[in-house]
Amino acid sequence: MKLENTFIAVQSASRKLRTLSNDRINEVLNAVAAEISIETPYILRENERDLERMELTNPKYDRLRLTTERLEAIAADIRNVATLPSPLGRVLMQREQPNGMKLTKVSVAFGVIGIIYEARPNVSFDVFSLCFKSGNACILKGGSDAEFSNLAIVRMIHRVLERFNIDKHTVELLPTNREATTELLHAVGYVDLLIPRGSSNLINFVRENATIPVIETGAGICHTYFDKEGDIEKGTKIINNAKTRRVSVCNALDCLIVHKDRLSDLPKLCKPLHNSNVVIYADADAYEMLKNNYPAELLEKATEDSFGTEFLDYKMSIKTINDLDEALNHIQKYSSKHSECIVTENQDTANTFCQLVDAACVYVNVSTAFTDGAQFGLGAEIGISTQKLHARGPMALEEITSYKWIIEGDGQTRS
Amino acid sequence: MKLENTFIAVQSASRKLRTLSNDRINEVLNAVAAEISIETPYILRENERDLERMELTNPKYDRLRLTTERLEAIAADIRNVATLPSPLGRVLMQREQPNGMKLTKVSVAFGVIGIIYEARPNVSFDVFSLCFKSGNACILKGGSDAEFSNLAIVRMIHRVLERFNIDKHTVELLPTNREATTELLHAVGYVDLLIPRGSSNLINFVRENATIPVIETGAGICHTYFDKEGDIEKGTKIINNAKTRRVSVCNALDCLIVHKDRLSDLPKLCKPLHNSNVVIYADADAYEMLKNNYPAELLEKATEDSFGTEFLDYKMSIKTINDLDEALNHIQKYSSKHSECIVTENQDTANTFCQLVDAACVYVNVSTAFTDGAQFGLGAEIGISTQKLHARGPMALEEITSYKWIIEGDGQTRS
Repeated sequence: MKLENTFIAVQSASRKLRTLSNDRINEVLNAVAAEISIETPYILRENERDLERMELTNPKYDRLRLTTERLEAIAADIRNVATLPSPLGRVLMQREQPNGMKLTKVSVAFGVIGIIYEARPNVSFDVFSLCFKSGNACILKGGSDAEFSNLAIVRMIHRVLERFNIDKHTVELLPTNREATTELLHAVGYVDLLIPRGSSNLINFVRENATIPVIETGAGICHTYFDKEGDIEKGTKIINNAKTRRVSVCNALDCLIVHKDRLSDLPKLCKPLHNSNVVIYADADAYEMLKNNYPAELLEKATEDSFGTEFLDYKMSIKTINDLDEALNHIQKYSSKHSECIVTENQDTANTFCQLVDAACVYVNVSTAFTDGAQFGLGAEIGISTQKLHARGPMALEEITSYKWIIEGDGQTRS
Repeated sequence: MKLENTFIAVQSASRKLRTLSNDRINEVLNAVAAEISIETPYILRENERDLERMELTNPKYDRLRLTTERLEAIAADIRNVATLPSPLGRVLMQREQPNGMKLTKVSVAFGVIGIIYEARPNVSFDVFSLCFKSGNACILKGGSDAEFSNLAIVRMIHRVLERFNIDKHTVELLPTNREATTELLHAVGYVDLLIPRGSSNLINFVRENATIPVIETGAGICHTYFDKEGDIEKGTKIINNAKTRRVSVCNALDCLIVHKDRLSDLPKLCKPLHNSNVVIYADADAYEMLKNNYPAELLEKATEDSFGTEFLDYKMSIKTINDLDEALNHIQKYSSKHSECIVTENQDTANTFCQLVDAACVYVNVSTAFTDGAQFGLGAEIGISTQKLHARGPMALEEITSYKWIIEGDGQTRS
C-alpha cells in the first residue's frame, strides 16, 4: 500500500488526541475559526483556481464556490462546535457486580474516521471540527474538483495545529486519484469508520467495495401521507414546505400519498406548488382531480418510474390509496427509510404509522424538512445515516464516538 | 438470486413482529423452552446423525454434541431471556424544540439479522431467542457439520411459532452450501445486520465479502500487564484464572507483560500454571528468571511469532518491559482490542492504562475471563464485538436494536 505510512501517521496522531483536554480542543477550534478570517484571501484565491476549471452551468458550481460570507459562516459554525459539550468520557452505564467489581461503560473516540465526499470544500472544515471535537483524527478524501480549495484549507489547519504543538496528521488530505480511494476503503486496522457523503453512486461504490466499517448516508426518497383525517391547512403548509424549501436536499418530499376520500382536497393541497413550478406526476385518480385545477404544463401522468425516485428537483409524484394499509405498503416498497410523514388528526392512526413505518425519522403533522442535526438540537451534523447500525438519522458528535468498558476490582477471578 | 424469495419472506415476517407485545413474545419463548423437553429425543437423534459423520478426535466434536443436560441448560437460558426487560420501545431521548415539535428517539428492532456460525447447534437456539425477544427475524447460516441438528431445531421452533399463529419465516435456516453464504453476504435491502460467529477465517471472509452491515466478533489476543506496583497475590490469581479457566475462549490470556523490576516475582506469578501444563514462551529476561523455576519441558524461548498470537490453548508468552509506555506500545502493536488487563496498586498508573489502551474491555486488577454478557449483567450474549461501530464488547439484547426518531407537531414547517 502506497498510503500505509500516511495511515500509520494518522493513527499515531489519533492516539495522541486521547490525552488532549476539552478546553485545549476548544482553544484550537477557536484558533482555526480566527485563522479563517486571516486566511480568507488565500482560501478564496485557491478556490478560484478550482472554479476556473468548472463550467459555470455545472450544478456543482455553487457547491464548490466559497465566498467571504460563506467562510464567515463556516468560522461561526466552528466556534459553535467549540461551545458544545464534549461527547467524550460520558458514563453510559455504571454498576457494581455482586463480586465487587465495578463496571463503567464510557464513551471514547473511534480513533480515525475517513470521509469521502464530492466538490464541497466546506465539508473539509465541518468534518475536521466535528472529528477533532470528538477526539478523532480524520482522513479526508475530497473530490478532485475541489483539490486546490481543500489543499488550502488543510494547509491552514495544519499551521494552527503546529502552533499548538499538535501532530498535524490529526487531519490528512488524500490525493485525489482513484488508487487513494481504493486504499482508504481497505485500510483495515487503520481506519475505524468510513462515512461517504454524496451521490448515491458514491454511496453504492463504497458499500460494494469497503472492507472497513461504513455508515451510509444520504439518499432520501421521502413520502408525505395525507390521511383521511388530515387537516387541510396543516397539510398544505407541510407539503409545500417539504417539497419546495430546498429541492436539492435529501429530506425533500418526493411522493405525496393521498387518501381517496380526500382527493377533492388535492387542488387546495397542491395550490402553493404552482408558485415554484413544481411538476406533478399524478396517478390516474389524482390526475383526474388536478387536470382542471393545476397548470397543464406542470401536470403529467405518473409512470412506474415516478415512484421510488429521489427527484432532487421541483418534481413530485402523487399516489392515491384506499386505506392506511395501502399507504404503509407503498412507503414500505419505495421508501429509502430516511424521512416519512403523516398528516392526520387521528391519534390512533398517527401511532400506527409511527410504529409500522421503518424509517430514521417518522413525522406526524411536521414537515420532513426538519431532518437535520441542528434542527434536532444536536448542535451540528456530520451526515444523515440511512442505515440502522450505530446511528440513524442526523449524526452529530455523540454519533462519532464509540465506547469502552472499564472493569475495576481487587483481584476478582471467575469461577 | 436463488434465495431472494426466502429473504422477502423473512423480511415480511419481521414486519409482523412490530405489533407483537412483549408478553406474547415471552409466552412463545417459554413454549419453545417447554418444547425442547418434549422434543429432546428427536433433537438428540438428529444430532447423533451429525456426530456420526465427525471423527471423535475432531476438536469440534464436543461443540457439536448435544446432550439432555445441555438441552436443559439451553431451555433454562431461553426461559431466562423471557424474564429480561424488552429492549424495544425504550425512550433514548426526548425533547421539545422551541417551535413546539416534540422529538422522541426510541429503540426499535433492526428487522432482519443474519448469523453465520460453525458447528455449534446451541447457537441456533441462542440466536433465535435473543433475536425474537428483540423483535428481529433471523436468518441462520449454520455449519454443514451441524446440518441435521439445526434442521431439527428450526423445525421444532417452527411448530411452536405456528401454534401461536406467528409467521414461521421469523426464523429461517439457509442451506449449507457456499452459494447461500454468498447470497446472504450480499442481501442488501433484506438483511439489516450480519453477525459472524466463529474462527478468524470466517470473520475475515465475511469482512472481505459482505456488502451488508456487519458486526465483527471474536478474535481475542489478550494481555495482562503486571506493573512495577502490582500486588503479587492478585497477579498470581488473575494470571492463572485468565490463562487456564477455559483456554478455548476469546478472553483467555495470551501474553503476560511484566515490569523488569518485578522479574524476580515471575516464578511465583507463574507457579500455578505448572498445574495446567501451560507452555510459556518467554523473552530473554523472563527465560533467565524462569529457567530454574519452571518445568524445562514447559519453557521455551519466545520468537516474534509468540506475540500477537491467539493461542486458544495452554500456551502463553511473556514480554519484559522497562516502563508503562513500553507496555502500552506492546499492547497497541499486538492487541486485537478485545480485553486487556493491568495489575497495579497505583491508581494513577491504572487510570493512564484505562485511558490509553484501545480495547473493548480494560481491566484493573480483575481477570479478563469476565468479558461475557452474563458476567457483565447484561442477561445474555449474542457475541463479543471487536469493532467500535454500534457495539463494543459483550452484545446482548440492547445491542441488537436500532432506533428511530419520532417527530410530532401541529403543522410545523421549516423557514
